[in-house]
Amino acid sequence: MTRTESVMGAIRAKIASGALGVGDRAPSIRGCARSLGVSPSTVVEAYDRLEAEGVIQGRRGSGFYVARADAQPLSIAPIEETREHDLDPFWISKQSLDADPSLAAPGCGWLPSDWMPHSALRRGLRGLSRAPERVLTQYGSTRGAVALRRLLQARLADEGVAAGLDQFLLTGSGTQAIDMICRLLVRPGAVVLVDDPCYFNFRALLQAHDVQVVGVPYTAAGPDLAVFEQRMVEHRPQLYITNSALHNPTGASLSPQVAHQVLRAASAHGLTIVEDDIFADFEPTPSPRLAVLDGLDRVIRIGSFSKTLSASVRCGYVAARPDLIERLVDLQIATNFGGPSPLAAELVAAVLGGGGYRKHMDEVRRRLVRARTEAIARLTPLGLQPWVRPRGGFYLWCRLPEGQDSGLIARRCLAEGVMLAPGDTFSVSQSAAGFLRFNVAHMGDARIFDTLRRAMAG
Amino acid sequence: MTRTESVMGAIRAKIASGALGVGDRAPSIRGCARSLGVSPSTVVEAYDRLEAEGVIQGRRGSGFYVARADAQPLSIAPIEETREHDLDPFWISKQSLDADPSLAAPGCGWLPSDWMPHSALRRGLRGLSRAPERVLTQYGSTRGAVALRRLLQARLADEGVAAGLDQFLLTGSGTQAIDMICRLLVRPGAVVLVDDPCYFNFRALLQAHDVQVVGVPYTAAGPDLAVFEQRMVEHRPQLYITNSALHNPTGASLSPQVAHQVLRAASAHGLTIVEDDIFADFEPTPSPRLAVLDGLDRVIRIGSFSKTLSASVRCGYVAARPDLIERLVDLQIATNFGGPSPLAAELVAAVLGGGGYRKHMDEVRRRLVRARTEAIARLTPLGLQPWVRPRGGFYLWCRLPEGQDSGLIARRCLAEGVMLAPGDTFSVSQSAAGFLRFNVAHMGDARIFDTLRRAMAG
Repeated sequence: MTRTESVMGAIRAKIASGALGVGDRAPSIRGCARSLGVSPSTVVEAYDRLEAEGVIQGRRGSGFYVARADAQPLSIAPIEETREHDLDPFWISKQSLDADPSLAAPGCGWLPSDWMPHSALRRGLRGLSRAPERVLTQYGSTRGAVALRRLLQARLADEGVAAGLDQFLLTGSGTQAIDMICRLLVRPGAVVLVDDPCYFNFRALLQAHDVQVVGVPYTAAGPDLAVFEQRMVEHRPQLYITNSALHNPTGASLSPQVAHQVLRAASAHGLTIVEDDIFADFEPTPSPRLAVLDGLDRVIRIGSFSKTLSASVRCGYVAARPDLIERLVDLQIATNFGGPSPLAAELVAAVLGGGGYRKHMDEVRRRLVRARTEAIARLTPLGLQPWVRPRGGFYLWCRLPEGQDSGLIARRCLAEGVMLAPGDTFSVSQSAAGFLRFNVAHMGDARIFDTLRRAMAG
Repeated sequence: MTRTESVMGAIRAKIASGALGVGDRAPSIRGCARSLGVSPSTVVEAYDRLEAEGVIQGRRGSGFYVARADAQPLSIAPIEETREHDLDPFWISKQSLDADPSLAAPGCGWLPSDWMPHSALRRGLRGLSRAPERVLTQYGSTRGAVALRRLLQARLADEGVAAGLDQFLLTGSGTQAIDMICRLLVRPGAVVLVDDPCYFNFRALLQAHDVQVVGVPYTAAGPDLAVFEQRMVEHRPQLYITNSALHNPTGASLSPQVAHQVLRAASAHGLTIVEDDIFADFEPTPSPRLAVLDGLDRVIRIGSFSKTLSASVRCGYVAARPDLIERLVDLQIATNFGGPSPLAAELVAAVLGGGGYRKHMDEVRRRLVRARTEAIARLTPLGLQPWVRPRGGFYLWCRLPEGQDSGLIARRCLAEGVMLAPGDTFSVSQSAAGFLRFNVAHMGDARIFDTLRRAMAG
């Protein structure tokens, strides 16, 4: 949004919150410009447009007065503000979701279509076309399709966690799972801990909850333990949201020692942990999991099938203590009248349960090893150094040469049809301007490296 | 939940909110019992269980002290409290969503499977199995499948509203659409107006938002205008949520005069209106719509395809001002990383756009006329009088004979395998105990009437 629009938004918010009532005088042009850190001319333009909308009315010589009190955005305001910067947490989402297909997108957060198990999905859809009427037309049960919950239960059992079917809830997406957990466990103003850097949408999500987001520097073995402890004492956070395996954006994974210490600190301070396990199937062998060590007591596992099976089915899940699931069921009825499409859940179950899925993922992992090696070989000469060499997945977190700004480079590349993922979109402390996140599965296009070189040359 | 569990919840909430810190003394048994209106023995049991969980610790002679500060539910609390009453807003949802199929369910809120267009759905799924890889595997655009938004745009155009494609957003469900609108426009503690009676899940949803829900008595022509005006002056609500056509639960529809007056009052007081249009396709001819008179300025239309096409596809929509849609897009990315499954949206578009849908709905409306006539013929002898004779849809809002309590009757019938919808689950003022909502499409089972007669005889 433009600065003018953000001024308009600020005034609307004041009106909606009751801080300004009908007939009240709006802040003076100068005062408003000062407090919002914009030029007076921006405020003048904003007030003109608000007047055109009938929200405020100018009186000759005596400023502007509120004319109409419309309901206006409140909880969204923090997000709106970030929209002022063109590298807000939505930058990558918008760029990649609405991208024109001709765009080269090494900054994208998922695999290209032709890497996904489409023949299994087509088979699954043909199967669904013969499903019972009930599956085709009814809401389905409050916890979601039993077939899929059984598969999730079996997977957890393989990891050594014996969980009941009542400890699983299917959701519309992994993000929705975290959103509901936050609605249940975190109140506005509370402190939520995330990794720095972390998945950019955690920041967007937490902004929508009006919570205080505090970052913990992420090391190649997990969160920095000393800082983690310090944050606990200093901020008494209610929640910590993290990826333990193939962390987004760094591709690093949690070490057994760090996992153990994080849980120790969490239980000492009464912290609940959300472990987003979305990249699990990309690991050659499973790395340590907080949910497994903890046995799903204070750790909540969430995940989805968007990265490995299909982003189009829109289906996520939560695995947690039964009492928590019980509350999430109510919240999901109240706010969504149920979870994912039962058709989607049955489709996921059909593909996951089918014999082909394991073979498919073996092949994807082999392709990713090759793609990663190639990408590193082509990025290094440009001065882009992988921060770690991930043991799986499609991310490569690369450090730029001294003095280079990834935000600037990303904007230059976008202008030439190459969408990158600049570091600061992932960083709560805005300390990752020297990094870019690459998706090695999207780097076949030769344009990418030429464009990068030119952008870095300036 | 049991009373014991609700006491445990209350103590946990005090701890989570910081009202009770580690080492603090928990309320005395007597004091807690008084303030929560339960028996001391209930509190004793709750404290025992909390001690077993290590949340509190008893010290001989000096009561209980907080031992551990876990994150605990907050925003959900109001819902939890209502769970104490077995006729809370979740009563019907739980009963019908998780119902065993042998149950007769005249209280259910949707059509039986065999009334839905399953052959068109099967055709649509076969079509999807041949869709482009992109549709099968990718997230899709932030506003949702263009094919479906075009159909929605054409429908609004038929009603006389010229709206751009950027005024439509697909959502995971109609409920999720309202939930996002509330997150955007309403802050905790604000006043939201609903009809009394209204769809029970509006109450559950608004409780999750911690807003003050105020009811307006519903007449056969829409909300009671005198009371509506009075509520506006008295409570200055930010939002009014209503069904204009075939109102749930009464089946009544808005009259042109009431529609006009509601909009007049809304604009005078800066009220935003959410018009839930989910029953539109059940009308023989369209009745007045607020969104149409208002031209989507301060009225937001939402809807879904769950009642007419399939509840299993999970797809809803919002039609509103472009600036509002823009904000909803961001909120939907932040909280759900997108809308409905693109597969679901394509499926809906295929069925809606297919020639068969109009014929299917003609047939459904014919069947409903017959079913309504039969139901009335069989309910009247029992002393159950339709409050209005709806011009369409499947609901029949019936008044019980003087002195009968629908809650009591519903519990008796449930024990005999018949699920009813008692009036007070729909009533903010709890003034509808003398009513039952019937679904005329679910009343073929002869058991229903015998069971009802016995339950009413007591």
